[in-house]
Amino acid sequence: MGTLGIVGVGLLGGSIAAAAKKRVLAQRIIGIGRNAERLQRASDGGLLDSYSTELSQAAEECDVLVFCTPVNRIIEGVRTAAASCRSGTLITDVGSCKAGICQSLSAELPSNVSFVGSHPIAGSEKQGFEHAKEELFSGSVCVVTPTARQLEMPSFDAQLSRTTRFWQALGATVIQMSPEAHDLALAETSHLPHVVAAALSRALDSENRQLAATGFRDTTRIAAGDPDLWLAILQDNRDAVLQSLARFREQLDSFQESLQNRDVEGLKKLLEDAKTSRDGLN
Amino acid sequence: MGTLGIVGVGLLGGSIAAAAKKRVLAQRIIGIGRNAERLQRASDGGLLDSYSTELSQAAEECDVLVFCTPVNRIIEGVRTAAASCRSGTLITDVGSCKAGICQSLSAELPSNVSFVGSHPIAGSEKQGFEHAKEELFSGSVCVVTPTARQLEMPSFDAQLSRTTRFWQALGATVIQMSPEAHDLALAETSHLPHVVAAALSRALDSENRQLAATGFRDTTRIAAGDPDLWLAILQDNRDAVLQSLARFREQLDSFQESLQNRDVEGLKKLLEDAKTSRDGLN
Repeated sequence: MGTLGIVGVGLLGGSIAAAAKKRVLAQRIIGIGRNAERLQRASDGGLLDSYSTELSQAAEECDVLVFCTPVNRIIEGVRTAAASCRSGTLITDVGSCKAGICQSLSAELPSNVSFVGSHPIAGSEKQGFEHAKEELFSGSVCVVTPTARQLEMPSFDAQLSRTTRFWQALGATVIQMSPEAHDLALAETSHLPHVVAAALSRALDSENRQLAATGFRDTTRIAAGDPDLWLAILQDNRDAVLQSLARFREQLDSFQESLQNRDVEGLKKLLEDAKTSRDGLN
Repeated sequence: MGTLGIVGVGLLGGSIAAAAKKRVLAQRIIGIGRNAERLQRASDGGLLDSYSTELSQAAEECDVLVFCTPVNRIIEGVRTAAASCRSGTLITDVGSCKAGICQSLSAELPSNVSFVGSHPIAGSEKQGFEHAKEELFSGSVCVVTPTARQLEMPSFDAQLSRTTRFWQALGATVIQMSPEAHDLALAETSHLPHVVAAALSRALDSENRQLAATGFRDTTRIAAGDPDLWLAILQDNRDAVLQSLARFREQLDSFQESLQNRDVEGLKKLLEDAKTSRDGLN
């Protein structure tokens, strides 16, 4: 690849840059963002070859553009970039919600530019390129989310393959899902856990802080994530998150009822099932 | 100290043995349990100087006895041990629930033996002395929980000091609380998070496992803990856990309502408060 443009050089964007540098995936990496000072620092740190605060102008130079901005800024950014891209440019993103973004963009881009939605399932509660890791995607799963409309387009296969090869080159295993199926699944595995961790964190009386050990810290770690970023995600995937929350509350009901009713066997079975489910992740 | 007896040589008991060995806290460490084969292995691994499956007999030889069994086996075990201890023996424990244990034992032990309740706030979802760490208590908090009745006894101060010095020698900062205040606090910081993690773990559709990344794994890690151990804790501290669960559900209600009502400012504030609370733990 000639030039890789990364829009939004934070933890994810920075990690893509670091991973691409290490694997010599592009001849040049441009960081694109709003804060020149931060971009200069990422550049000084060796993540970027150059940077720009002018999206339209920088987009002209890119063969592949990856949007790593908060989900509520992706559609507008891709529209702006697509209007000035060279023919054949591939645009993808890392947003945690896919249906709104992919349905909107697959319908309206100029025909010489392709957008393929992606979501690398990797990250951290930390923010900023200072926490970027060149191995963040190594061994991780990345979901690519073509829309039904895109899959019917004859030229789309080549762009889907390019996107897949891009994430594979960064070390990820790529799976394909519809944007809608992705959003339902991620509500359960990521967005609901964020709400739960945040609610648990808020439920902590500050007087009890010194009694919160590893267990509490693990369970609430993601509540330290960027509130604006999560606000955008929860708003975007609102319906699926509410559905997941309802299912979670049914689980809580089961635990509560077995405790209230002193149903020892029932409670034991719930704890055992939970352990089996969690052990299945290792 | 002459002889330290550790009843239940699992993760916590093994870590006490390892920490005491490293700090040369006792001339001899006896492991006491039900499974001779496991005790032999802990002994082969250098954690123990000797072991016994006969609690009464082993208790006779100990200056300090620490009970690291599940909470529902502590009262009976201490009673058995106390009946054969030498005069002046100090007995303590590591149980996560204190009111039931401390109220019961402070009322009924022979006058020449003292029981002081302890709870080192340290641990892991892992089980077995194979995961013991000699620095597990280093920098941790340990709560000692004398009862009001004990604090009125003239000779009790010396035993409380012995207990405090024991945990300090293992690297912990010791704080004192009533057993009841401890149980209310721990319901919030440890027992509720376990229920929440277990409910979240059960809510995961196995088809979505590959989409569960670090966030989900952190949030549910403690659900992998020993179901029997947690069953005993949740039963023992049932009322306080139900109270904490009710408060947690109010927090969940707030998140749910702000999402349902598309109350962006309200949801943002909830996420920001949660981050502030979580950041306060670091």
